[in-house]
Amino acid sequence: MENEKYLDAIFHPKTLAVVGAPQERPLGWPGIFGCIRDYGYPGRLYPINPRVTHVEGLKAYPDLVSVPEPIDLVIISVPAPAVPAALMDCIASGNRNVHIFTSGFNETGEEVGLELHRQIKEIALAGDLRVIGPNCMGVYVPKERLTTWVKPSGKDGPVAFISQSGGHAQDFTGFTSRLGIFFSKVVSYGNALTLDSTDFLEYLADDPDTKIIAMYLEGVKDGRKLLEVVSRINRTKPVIILKAGLTEAGTRAVASHTGSMAGGEHIWDAFFRMSGSVRAYSLEDMAHVTLTFRHLGTTEGTRIAVMGHGGGIAVSAADACGNAGLTMPPFRNETQAELRSFIPSSGNMIRNPVDAIPIFIDTANIQRMLDLASAEPDIDMLMIALSLDWLFDVDDGVHIERIAEYLAGHAREFVHNKPLVVTWRTYRNDPRIPEVGLKIERLLLEAGIPVYRGFEPATSALARWAGYHRFIRERSQH
Amino acid sequence: MENEKYLDAIFHPKTLAVVGAPQERPLGWPGIFGCIRDYGYPGRLYPINPRVTHVEGLKAYPDLVSVPEPIDLVIISVPAPAVPAALMDCIASGNRNVHIFTSGFNETGEEVGLELHRQIKEIALAGDLRVIGPNCMGVYVPKERLTTWVKPSGKDGPVAFISQSGGHAQDFTGFTSRLGIFFSKVVSYGNALTLDSTDFLEYLADDPDTKIIAMYLEGVKDGRKLLEVVSRINRTKPVIILKAGLTEAGTRAVASHTGSMAGGEHIWDAFFRMSGSVRAYSLEDMAHVTLTFRHLGTTEGTRIAVMGHGGGIAVSAADACGNAGLTMPPFRNETQAELRSFIPSSGNMIRNPVDAIPIFIDTANIQRMLDLASAEPDIDMLMIALSLDWLFDVDDGVHIERIAEYLAGHAREFVHNKPLVVTWRTYRNDPRIPEVGLKIERLLLEAGIPVYRGFEPATSALARWAGYHRFIRERSQH
Repeated sequence: MENEKYLDAIFHPKTLAVVGAPQERPLGWPGIFGCIRDYGYPGRLYPINPRVTHVEGLKAYPDLVSVPEPIDLVIISVPAPAVPAALMDCIASGNRNVHIFTSGFNETGEEVGLELHRQIKEIALAGDLRVIGPNCMGVYVPKERLTTWVKPSGKDGPVAFISQSGGHAQDFTGFTSRLGIFFSKVVSYGNALTLDSTDFLEYLADDPDTKIIAMYLEGVKDGRKLLEVVSRINRTKPVIILKAGLTEAGTRAVASHTGSMAGGEHIWDAFFRMSGSVRAYSLEDMAHVTLTFRHLGTTEGTRIAVMGHGGGIAVSAADACGNAGLTMPPFRNETQAELRSFIPSSGNMIRNPVDAIPIFIDTANIQRMLDLASAEPDIDMLMIALSLDWLFDVDDGVHIERIAEYLAGHAREFVHNKPLVVTWRTYRNDPRIPEVGLKIERLLLEAGIPVYRGFEPATSALARWAGYHRFIRERSQH
Repeated sequence: MENEKYLDAIFHPKTLAVVGAPQERPLGWPGIFGCIRDYGYPGRLYPINPRVTHVEGLKAYPDLVSVPEPIDLVIISVPAPAVPAALMDCIASGNRNVHIFTSGFNETGEEVGLELHRQIKEIALAGDLRVIGPNCMGVYVPKERLTTWVKPSGKDGPVAFISQSGGHAQDFTGFTSRLGIFFSKVVSYGNALTLDSTDFLEYLADDPDTKIIAMYLEGVKDGRKLLEVVSRINRTKPVIILKAGLTEAGTRAVASHTGSMAGGEHIWDAFFRMSGSVRAYSLEDMAHVTLTFRHLGTTEGTRIAVMGHGGGIAVSAADACGNAGLTMPPFRNETQAELRSFIPSSGNMIRNPVDAIPIFIDTANIQRMLDLASAEPDIDMLMIALSLDWLFDVDDGVHIERIAEYLAGHAREFVHNKPLVVTWRTYRNDPRIPEVGLKIERLLLEAGIPVYRGFEPATSALARWAGYHRFIRERSQH
């Protein structure tokens, strides 16, 4: 397909041109050109600026026509009124892959912007341009050292992100990097003048570097096509979607932001039901769901065992599971009897959830508990819930790290191949405790164990992960 | 009422006895007696222990009968099988106010515990004892330097917390102290042998130090009475309730935790609708709701203006408001025109939500924006949404602090007496940015401005705060 060829050039450009590369860096922000330089793009980079001879040591060209070779991706960063001429220059020079960074078009809702929008649309269609944007951050591909924003992660990974918002593209990739999630390809596409979410989706379907696709959508031009494409891709690569603008105020904000029509809540309910794609409710939530898919394989059910300490907290965990749609079957009597052999009855709960401080004092007991809980035939997944405040007092956090090291290593031999996740919580007003939390979070994430702060992010992500696998299983049986 | 007299003694004890005070502190936890000593209780404290002469320098008594004066609150911390005898000692010595810390009773669901429960119930009723517990942490009153747990805050404030869980009592007070919320009285009452939530509520209704009441409930003995008492108190002191155990797994966990019957979801829906009390969904959520009530006065409506920067973020804010039940009316045309005079159209939104980086570069512009937004007749409350990542790049956070100082001080003259809240978010993987966030959080909280991390906690708390005031207004009109 033709899309694939030019999107390949856009995501793996050998040559880049920045129209409007300034001689000096603007205060407080390195500019598009500066960001590309700082990230170490290894291809041939052409600054386009008729008023200067050089930009940051590179020869500047007055226009694209003067550049001695074809450009895989032209990035336009001039004021909105100058964009039509820049697009004409693209056509004249035969460079048809374009990212328009500039904003000030139909999203303003004002006459000047709407007229400029009509102009660039006409030019783009007449010249058969492939336009990302306008009003967006464009492309981030860590493997190619390609970015247009400040200090993104240098690591790459199996997740792709298609985002209508440039801010969200930066925020989501930044936030997930804390969780050890890295990206194959990210594209922020703003007002979607010609290229829309479905074009990127189709490309990513066949991209060997992409295993999971996250999306932030404001509006969609062709809903039927989106449903068809998402339904198809979602069978092999989970598609996780945050759909914005489903409230009255959100609809108006979406129109102001990317000039998009948001669509109604009932349409999107049907979309998720029919496509089987995974619904996210905020950037943070999408990060937790992505983390779950990133590390866990598949599951047959929704039955969870929760093991922690603190009675009120065990109740919270049970309610969080129930609210999310996970079930928490009580352990069989013989399992309860075995747990009772090393967990005293006073102050402890053993039916599932397990609430038992003594277990966490000795890793040998954690092992026995994991072994027993995961051997239960009615249990599909395991959660260890660490209340850091209580464990911190043992020896100022050393023991917490010991538990995390154990869970990241040896313990995994005793889970009968069932998925294991960890949650941690701290409530005390002591800054040393969250520091320990961050430390064990890194340790567990590096070992491929999903970690969440608090129950709700964990249980709601696990429920959607299990729901995805049920959908895929049921579809494959028909 | 009789309750009031003895609860006054329990919350303001001149004399305390700890039955089972050990000669040595157990490893890793100072014990009940150690916690009381460490917190600096100024009254007369009697260790009861027949096997030693002294505990931590204080003369030990073999039993309560030997103590030379009446005891306002007896705290029992002996193994469960020894609790019946300790209660008999209370009766023999004429000391009827008792907190049983010990667990291992009906919450175990096992025969030994159930039998012990029957025994202590019989003794307590026969001796007309006022029992807090068993299986709980008891009383925390900062003003009286009274606690049974490790390192609680030394500050006192206008919030009371009635919690069936001792862990939650510690966690909630610890977590809220980060938000500058402090307590008049906290009681954790576990299995509620004789004293139940309604007894504490009735006492707090007349407590001049208490203005807001938070509750964590697992089970309730007399639902009709709770409805009556909460409905009455809630008219003058907002009652914020986290009800646990409303899922199948939660119901079972509640039985294991405090031996309580949780009740059904539909009953509790009706309870909240009829009483007008404020429903919370987790400890963290209850903290955010309490914070909102703590600092904001009353409101006539639910119409909010949101001012921030970042288009995708503005859309998120709008959706969060819509989902919570707040409305976000667009500003009038003349107000939009005035905003447009200092906010350029390219890349910015001015209709409400406002998305405009330029505003946040100069506090004079923040002032103009606040003045215009709060003068809108259709706006009831104001939210400033700070995206720290973007502002951090201006000068490594100095400017963010300048904005916070401005909001905490001078800016408040320009809000036309409308409530102002602040949210902040950071997504970048840079530990310096959350540090700035914590700094401005403290600064704003000290100035009495509620601060939230992210939109959802803010919008959902504001919606419930507004809902409470609507309920009160409508009731007072009938």
